Amino acid sequence: MKMQAWEEAAPGVWRLTIGDPQAITPLTWMGVSPRTDALSQKPAAQPPFAWESIQLEEARSGHILSFPLNQTEKLYGAGLQLLRMNLRGRTRYLRVNSDPKQDTGETHAPVPFYVSDLGYGVWVDTSRIVTIHCGSTLKQEDTDRSEIRNRNTDKGWKATPIASRVEIQIPVEGADVYVFGGPTLSDVVSRYNLYCGGGVLPPKWGLGFWHRVPTLFNEEEVLEEARQFREHDIPCDVIGLEPGWHSHSYPVTYEWEKSRFPEPERFVQQLKHNGFHVNLWEHPFVSPETELHSKLQPLSGSHTVWGGLAPDYSLPEAQQLYKTQHDEQHVQIGVSGYKLDECDGSELTNNSWMFPGHAKFPSGIDGEQMRQIYGLMFQKMTYDLYHSRNQRTYGLVRASNGAAATMPYVLYSDLYDHKQFIRAVCNSSFSGLLWTPEVRRARNAEDWVRRMQTVCFSSLAMLNAWGDGTKPWSYPEVEGIIRHYIKLRMRLLPYLYSNFALYREQGIPPFRAMPFVISAAEIAQAEAGGPDNEPSILNTTDGAYGKKKAREWDDQFMVGDALLVAPLVEGEWERDVLLPSGIWYGLETGERYTGGRVIRIHASLEQIPVFVRSGSVIPMMPALPHVPHAGTRVALELVHFGSEPGEGLLYDDDGETFNYEKGECGWWKATVTQNSDGEFNGKLTGPDGEMPSYDSINWRFAQTRLEASGK
Amino acid sequence: MKMQAWEEAAPGVWRLTIGDPQAITPLTWMGVSPRTDALSQKPAAQPPFAWESIQLEEARSGHILSFPLNQTEKLYGAGLQLLRMNLRGRTRYLRVNSDPKQDTGETHAPVPFYVSDLGYGVWVDTSRIVTIHCGSTLKQEDTDRSEIRNRNTDKGWKATPIASRVEIQIPVEGADVYVFGGPTLSDVVSRYNLYCGGGVLPPKWGLGFWHRVPTLFNEEEVLEEARQFREHDIPCDVIGLEPGWHSHSYPVTYEWEKSRFPEPERFVQQLKHNGFHVNLWEHPFVSPETELHSKLQPLSGSHTVWGGLAPDYSLPEAQQLYKTQHDEQHVQIGVSGYKLDECDGSELTNNSWMFPGHAKFPSGIDGEQMRQIYGLMFQKMTYDLYHSRNQRTYGLVRASNGAAATMPYVLYSDLYDHKQFIRAVCNSSFSGLLWTPEVRRARNAEDWVRRMQTVCFSSLAMLNAWGDGTKPWSYPEVEGIIRHYIKLRMRLLPYLYSNFALYREQGIPPFRAMPFVISAAEIAQAEAGGPDNEPSILNTTDGAYGKKKAREWDDQFMVGDALLVAPLVEGEWERDVLLPSGIWYGLETGERYTGGRVIRIHASLEQIPVFVRSGSVIPMMPALPHVPHAGTRVALELVHFGSEPGEGLLYDDDGETFNYEKGECGWWKATVTQNSDGEFNGKLTGPDGEMPSYDSINWRFAQTRLEASGK
Repeated sequence: MKMQAWEEAAPGVWRLTIGDPQAITPLTWMGVSPRTDALSQKPAAQPPFAWESIQLEEARSGHILSFPLNQTEKLYGAGLQLLRMNLRGRTRYLRVNSDPKQDTGETHAPVPFYVSDLGYGVWVDTSRIVTIHCGSTLKQEDTDRSEIRNRNTDKGWKATPIASRVEIQIPVEGADVYVFGGPTLSDVVSRYNLYCGGGVLPPKWGLGFWHRVPTLFNEEEVLEEARQFREHDIPCDVIGLEPGWHSHSYPVTYEWEKSRFPEPERFVQQLKHNGFHVNLWEHPFVSPETELHSKLQPLSGSHTVWGGLAPDYSLPEAQQLYKTQHDEQHVQIGVSGYKLDECDGSELTNNSWMFPGHAKFPSGIDGEQMRQIYGLMFQKMTYDLYHSRNQRTYGLVRASNGAAATMPYVLYSDLYDHKQFIRAVCNSSFSGLLWTPEVRRARNAEDWVRRMQTVCFSSLAMLNAWGDGTKPWSYPEVEGIIRHYIKLRMRLLPYLYSNFALYREQGIPPFRAMPFVISAAEIAQAEAGGPDNEPSILNTTDGAYGKKKAREWDDQFMVGDALLVAPLVEGEWERDVLLPSGIWYGLETGERYTGGRVIRIHASLEQIPVFVRSGSVIPMMPALPHVPHAGTRVALELVHFGSEPGEGLLYDDDGETFNYEKGECGWWKATVTQNSDGEFNGKLTGPDGEMPSYDSINWRFAQTRLEASGK
Repeated sequence: MKMQAWEEAAPGVWRLTIGDPQAITPLTWMGVSPRTDALSQKPAAQPPFAWESIQLEEARSGHILSFPLNQTEKLYGAGLQLLRMNLRGRTRYLRVNSDPKQDTGETHAPVPFYVSDLGYGVWVDTSRIVTIHCGSTLKQEDTDRSEIRNRNTDKGWKATPIASRVEIQIPVEGADVYVFGGPTLSDVVSRYNLYCGGGVLPPKWGLGFWHRVPTLFNEEEVLEEARQFREHDIPCDVIGLEPGWHSHSYPVTYEWEKSRFPEPERFVQQLKHNGFHVNLWEHPFVSPETELHSKLQPLSGSHTVWGGLAPDYSLPEAQQLYKTQHDEQHVQIGVSGYKLDECDGSELTNNSWMFPGHAKFPSGIDGEQMRQIYGLMFQKMTYDLYHSRNQRTYGLVRASNGAAATMPYVLYSDLYDHKQFIRAVCNSSFSGLLWTPEVRRARNAEDWVRRMQTVCFSSLAMLNAWGDGTKPWSYPEVEGIIRHYIKLRMRLLPYLYSNFALYREQGIPPFRAMPFVISAAEIAQAEAGGPDNEPSILNTTDGAYGKKKAREWDDQFMVGDALLVAPLVEGEWERDVLLPSGIWYGLETGERYTGGRVIRIHASLEQIPVFVRSGSVIPMMPALPHVPHAGTRVALELVHFGSEPGEGLLYDDDGETFNYEKGECGWWKATVTQNSDGEFNGKLTGPDGEMPSYDSINWRFAQTRLEASGK
């Protein structure tokens, strides 16, 4: 096939159109415009390859597009990968699947976008399944004989030979393929996010603490549980209702069950009055017991799921039915958002919780496409609903795909491995996704604390008690630790919010994997002084291809540029931490560390190891019971760490509406200088000398640790 | 698409041709002829459906052929499924894959053939991937509103709704689809096997004990290990050599490493002299270090694996190169067979151990097809090599597909879950496959004994010590138990061999899952008195869709019609056993049981629960150090169990050649009658009054348990 020309679609973004791309893709569905303003301000990027080094071949299974790969480069991304960070040597079969228990590439959010640590990225914008062979295939002509070793005698034998190309299988119909330039990995991801419209800025309340109540709770039980949060002095902003609020589920009605919620509006308003937002669980499959059913039936797919209709929301008529019903019965009475469940479907542990790939939809879309973008459809429809009311929303979704950075949705999973949940914080950052390592029941108090510590340093801090009824005080012996971390999150809200604003405006995610801030060469240097990896051992019971595993540092991450979080999981009382160069302090221990090294940390149950970069200025606020409403002014604290001058950023706006789109927002820079006597001084400068909407500003200088109280 | 007519391809076998089936399919590759003689003798079968109830639709992903399904029928088969027996409600994605760790349908041997307990089967003969939705999809028009339950309040809610059709996704190019009639499930499988040429009859030595030595053993070490078997009085017939016999591996040379095996022929002959056959490990990928490489290079696929060529053996020239090399360097010097490893490839734990689906081969076959039938290719090539020398072979293979019943190969896996290994004994019986639950290192002596007990009641009793160097006496405290079961297998050889002959002639597998001998109604009746299943519990940490699991009885199986084996695994000291109706005895305990019930059995480590059907007559022989060569006559023992008259069958031939194809074989019937005094009498009747080739015949009547000694 003749290769079309690559064209520059935006600064540092190149596009190749292969075949005849389909009408509905993540990018067209989202309808977003590239943030060319922000893209133009980035450092200039050169194409990462000579275009002629990219090959296009035809196969029965689709177009095979291949890119060169050097001997040592690492590849990241491909969406919400739970089982691995560096994709080099692996094939990613990027199908939406709710049970990513094996490392095939399938996941809730399989974005066909990978980034290289050499500073470029490749994205296929399609609603079909893409397979990316990330250096897991080797052609005859690329096979280096000298690399072939004798496993019998040569200890250098590798289970996975080093390949020299990435081979991408693109759907037979064709697709648009994008290459994003750097120069750094962070720039690549930023370009991808900006090209897709920039990152999301949640409402401030969305960054408070979330609690989902047991599925069959009624009005009184929910109100009582909310009250207990205040009584226990544990901040909480959002109460989530689970399937029991529907009059029938599964499949669902989207209508309130009147025996449990006789007056939904009064109920929602009462919670709101007490400082709680309401989030409603739903899934895509429409019950015959709802008014919508007969209208949606002709607009739905050939197959039912749990007996419910799977509507074709690419049809404007179906969209309108869904939006109107949701607007009238939920949004207008004050509901703040949704948890969009089961729009992924499982083909691993069970195969009947999704329509098949061959299902047919009235618009002509088939089951494969619909499943790949079903999560995006619900995100966009609900987002539009709130946007049209100039009201921000924030919620949860179980399936996503490319071009999702603008969406106010955070991914979650029914899986529950804490290490995987931490890795997902890292991996989601490469592909314009947000992820919550939600907490459910725990094995014991230690497991409970470790999970709660992690979730408080994520995009959405939530306890999901839908099935087990746990509460933050369920393990009384550690209630104090839990309270401490939920309050710490609340105190950090100005910092978190500012980092989300950076996501929106510059495409740099608030939670970032280590490759965003440290290069492969720097990692190698830091590791040189660290503990050895374990050697491989031949093992005939658990797997015959044992090999030395390189440490991926997929168990620690940055929150903004100032904080490094290195969680512990149950059973761990110490761990290695990769510290980038510079001076760091233990955020709550005050211990001083020299970075550019791997350090060994011990931590009691009271502590999650968090490190703050010397010279940072972190904006903070008091640990209120809930995030203040727009217009409520609270005290701002600007905490400067270390013994040298430094600076930090603060973003602010009303926190609830889209008025920032009209410029009603501002950035402030907190600058700390030191005079000749060694005294520190702080200065907050902002747009036109305006001050942010806080009622006082307290500076703290030269801190080595955060003081326990917010005041 | 217009539905072609179904035509009767053989008695009780109907075929539908969809589209333009591809040239190479499992059936065409095998080149076998249906055993119309045996098929004609089966009871007449009616088509199981009205043909017009079968629907054919077109989709992008292929032809969707769908068959009706009743409310309660169960579906089995789909090849070597390790994780599940009843496929109802599941989708089977039938791709060859060496890491079937999740229940997707992928496996070493994904045969697109399923059987219903209503007495019919459906097979798609193709070299491409087939997806079978076994009642895991539900169309709008088939959705029964009354079946839709409210999970909120209705305890009868099911995670998997009951569907009314099987939907099969057939490759876009088309394929031949076969329906096999019954009337019983056993008849269905028998028809499938007979249509594919009948089951395999291994050489007698293949049913002895097998031992694979550590990969880097040299000539002296192998001979010494063989000697120790005799010294320890543990029967052994086959010594397997692992990668270390190749001069280079991986990829492989197929040439002897002279530093370890300076005189291969002398070495093989010396083992043969001591009663051992030699089996050689190999894999498909050809090293540059072998003479074959330059000749095979132009005949190989676009991609290499471990740096080795993947030859296109659909080309006669490539076949000839492989066969000639193997003949000259292995078969002619006395090697008895092969272990064909890694012809499956993994896309789960690692993705680079196989060429990709888009790989291109010189004949025009692509990587998907080649991978689906690579295992069949090696089986057939090596089988032909031995058949042309009128010498039977028996070996191991890690990948297979449809139409493989005639092949002298037994499947195995690098996985190692004992329960799954037992289930695979059951499941392989539905699809014309054989399976060995091979033993490697064990966690402890108990695990070791339990695994050894199981493997001695399988198609190939093997200890695979390639990586860990274990021996049957590695756990001295239980060496006696191990010896006992290896000897018991040897004693049962005439019975096992006769059951393989039944496989060959009537297509009834020697090892059979319970549905071969007990109907769903009988199981339900037997279970009615048994222990309750555990109720479902909502569980938010391990999976939110908990449901009551029906017992599948996939942990016990029949060996022939007389023996029922119900293994225990480590940690189990008791278990439930589903006993079909009739009277049964504990084979080694002599305890008497009334069948048609679920019984609870306790067993010490010395015992694997095996039950013998009252009235059986089991042909046995002494526990010799190895299977006697053709022409060596040993004592035959005919053991009759129970207090009523009965009968049993004995098959015999030279045990080594294909002369049985010319009729040089015979069946004997052992009939036990009882006279008016209650005395039992035995009579062995055979072809033309001829006697089988044993040197004496000893009858034992009215036994309730097997005596410890073979004499």
